[in-house]
Amino acid sequence: MKNKIPTRIYLTEDEMPKHWYNLRADMKDKPDPILHPGTLQPVTAEDLAPVFCKGVIDQELDETTRLVPIPSDIQDFYRAYRPSPLIRAYYLEKMLDTPAEIYYKFEGTNTSGSHKLNSAGPQAYYAKEAGLTSLTTETGAGQWGTAMAMACGFYDLKLTVYMVKISSEQKPYRKALMEAYGANLIPSPSNTTEAGKKILEVDPNTGGSLGCAISEAIERAVKTDKCRYVLGSVLNHVLLHQSIIGLETKTALDKYGIKPDIIIGCAGGGSNLGGLISPFMGEKLAGKSNTRFIAVEPASCPSFTRGRFAYDFGDTGKTTPLIKMQTLGSGFIPSANHAGGLRYHGMNSTLSKLYKDGLLEARSEVQTEVFDAALKFMKGEGILPAPESSHAIKAAIDEALECKKTGEKKVILFGLSGTGFFDMTAYTSYNNKTMSDQIPSDADLERGFASIPNIPQNI
Amino acid sequence: MKNKIPTRIYLTEDEMPKHWYNLRADMKDKPDPILHPGTLQPVTAEDLAPVFCKGVIDQELDETTRLVPIPSDIQDFYRAYRPSPLIRAYYLEKMLDTPAEIYYKFEGTNTSGSHKLNSAGPQAYYAKEAGLTSLTTETGAGQWGTAMAMACGFYDLKLTVYMVKISSEQKPYRKALMEAYGANLIPSPSNTTEAGKKILEVDPNTGGSLGCAISEAIERAVKTDKCRYVLGSVLNHVLLHQSIIGLETKTALDKYGIKPDIIIGCAGGGSNLGGLISPFMGEKLAGKSNTRFIAVEPASCPSFTRGRFAYDFGDTGKTTPLIKMQTLGSGFIPSANHAGGLRYHGMNSTLSKLYKDGLLEARSEVQTEVFDAALKFMKGEGILPAPESSHAIKAAIDEALECKKTGEKKVILFGLSGTGFFDMTAYTSYNNKTMSDQIPSDADLERGFASIPNIPQNI
Repeated sequence: MKNKIPTRIYLTEDEMPKHWYNLRADMKDKPDPILHPGTLQPVTAEDLAPVFCKGVIDQELDETTRLVPIPSDIQDFYRAYRPSPLIRAYYLEKMLDTPAEIYYKFEGTNTSGSHKLNSAGPQAYYAKEAGLTSLTTETGAGQWGTAMAMACGFYDLKLTVYMVKISSEQKPYRKALMEAYGANLIPSPSNTTEAGKKILEVDPNTGGSLGCAISEAIERAVKTDKCRYVLGSVLNHVLLHQSIIGLETKTALDKYGIKPDIIIGCAGGGSNLGGLISPFMGEKLAGKSNTRFIAVEPASCPSFTRGRFAYDFGDTGKTTPLIKMQTLGSGFIPSANHAGGLRYHGMNSTLSKLYKDGLLEARSEVQTEVFDAALKFMKGEGILPAPESSHAIKAAIDEALECKKTGEKKVILFGLSGTGFFDMTAYTSYNNKTMSDQIPSDADLERGFASIPNIPQNI
Repeated sequence: MKNKIPTRIYLTEDEMPKHWYNLRADMKDKPDPILHPGTLQPVTAEDLAPVFCKGVIDQELDETTRLVPIPSDIQDFYRAYRPSPLIRAYYLEKMLDTPAEIYYKFEGTNTSGSHKLNSAGPQAYYAKEAGLTSLTTETGAGQWGTAMAMACGFYDLKLTVYMVKISSEQKPYRKALMEAYGANLIPSPSNTTEAGKKILEVDPNTGGSLGCAISEAIERAVKTDKCRYVLGSVLNHVLLHQSIIGLETKTALDKYGIKPDIIIGCAGGGSNLGGLISPFMGEKLAGKSNTRFIAVEPASCPSFTRGRFAYDFGDTGKTTPLIKMQTLGSGFIPSANHAGGLRYHGMNSTLSKLYKDGLLEARSEVQTEVFDAALKFMKGEGILPAPESSHAIKAAIDEALECKKTGEKKVILFGLSGTGFFDMTAYTSYNNKTMSDQIPSDADLERGFASIPNIPQNI
């Protein structure tokens, strides 16, 4: 087998992107603005200044600059672990006996194990630039916390991570890795914040939630001198940083004249999916392609496929600004049984808007079938995928098998956002057949929707 | 910072090696032959046939073919995860403030997490070629077992792994990963073999050892139809397969006209070190370079620096052929406290010979200092190194600091053989300061030496 297209396509350093791409600048119908929850007016930079640092606020609010230069310092940071490989899935294609061509962009070769490092680096850099000495954040499955621990180790910033308590107990090695990079880990809810104390009063034995950890991290940031909060998904500045994924992919494909027919990504808060599709979606908006885009979410937390398009809070404590997004309600509690991340109640506002406007498709998958796909993939391609990323694998396999039926030679691209080294408990429960699917009932969803604030939705 | 030499050098598929390099062919003074333990005569292919499959036996006994073609099927296998990156350690250099240039070849980007896959693939391929249906092996820290599980998953062969019992208990995730690839894991010693039963009779609560697991795996292989045994280090056919590491590295360095002054690798059985240095040692033997070669071993298991050059068995059960090597005696039991691998009593015969002849230097390092170096490295370079690989990091840092003293701008190359994702227990004990150094006393060594067979050593 000698292939015209190599199994792994790497860019040279000269070919690596020098700009991030801001998809919103090319959208005629832009996402609705973020609102101040008190005034219901669009937030200003001043509103956000106590929580976020200036560099990312400017990016969050900028809807018009198409190409945002990547500071040379961050280009250096990226060079320490990028470019990531774009891989032609020759073995998977053979295993499926499909006429389709399958490609995947693999973001798991860095030590944090996922794409999260692409935004952790810039966020730590802007904090350092602004003269801050520490940051706070939250982490659920642990990828984002690890990425921030690495970035803060690199830029010599203190980091406090509120880790969802049940995760910190189930994933002691994730905790150890973050600590090895110098991060201060606090299981959430904790007694270190008012938000945490309040929750512990009601239920001292709670395992915690991402929404609660966010509330604690924000509270600590605003109460600490020279400290701000960082978030690893959902917001548009995160999507901007993650556009590096799509830009590298597009450059690599363009070298070989390859045009994807379908692009697939898993979706929790949207950072990986949004980063991968941004430049390709830009082409579609300009009428230059007919590419289909597919978001794949867990059936246990279906914010696209069963959620509502509404202004909602980003956290369960209802302390954040309001974001117009696909949401299950900030009070929605996804099953703890679900492996890995992708368990956030909302979705990035840009992706939500694209979905609403029919430019982005979405589907949900149950976890046992997602792990079926993961096992197929790991045997063929040799890579242990993260449970999150395996949602994209599932959809890619389904599309490739559809091509087998129709005989179409489509080009399928998907994002392999990370590795599953810290998810072996989930793989074990899959191997032992103790894993179950967790699909919320309509009543479960109604309880979540009831937490969506009752405000005018067209502002 | 814009660098003439990129941070990461990748070969294109066309540049990837088409041959392995057999260093022994270029050695005037070759390693002594492997002996049959009964006759004390050099082993023949027939002697080895019940244990190993033909393809690897031919390679093991071949001392004259310089370049061994890599079968196209194995080139395909390699393309699924290679080339591995050669990385310029710009950040580590900056951190150390050294005039030295530091490069490392990173073998940890595949799912097995180490270089072991480079030999697992070929060994599974030759087994498949020979019409076998199953293989057996042993694993200690788990890298080799994982690599074989992946390779057997790929080539559709059954695999039974005897995993040192204490490791299988301490590393449940390693076990889960091998099982996810379809391997059958048996904690050793076990009741499935006579060798295992014998050991359990003496000590039913033993945690096992690599030597014992080898005995069990060999016994099962010779007693099972269409089954053979595979070994991940020590033997010369493994070094041959691992020469892919050095060949890729040399091609990458040659592209930029870089000549290493010092090449460093960690050494357990010698597969990673031997693979990395082979083509460079070939140049030295041809009088074309003055490169220094440094093997770094743990102070807890110092087969180079405190061992004897003698014919010895490869396993504690004394069932293998005799190998002339640096050895601590097959009865030497390294401290269980030591993190990771590198705990084998002997050393590859080719490397042992080069050491004896003054062509290869060696040093030993204590584990707390090795972890000091690992933490420095992971903060600067962003990669979590395996405890094994961190021995090479320690020596590379020491050499770079020596350059800082002398002002010399040496080029230092080291092998980063793997990642530490499954070694977080060790990192935790380092973080908690509960890790200790384990240096055997002279009396400990004498007890090991007593197990070296009393036979004429010059045959």
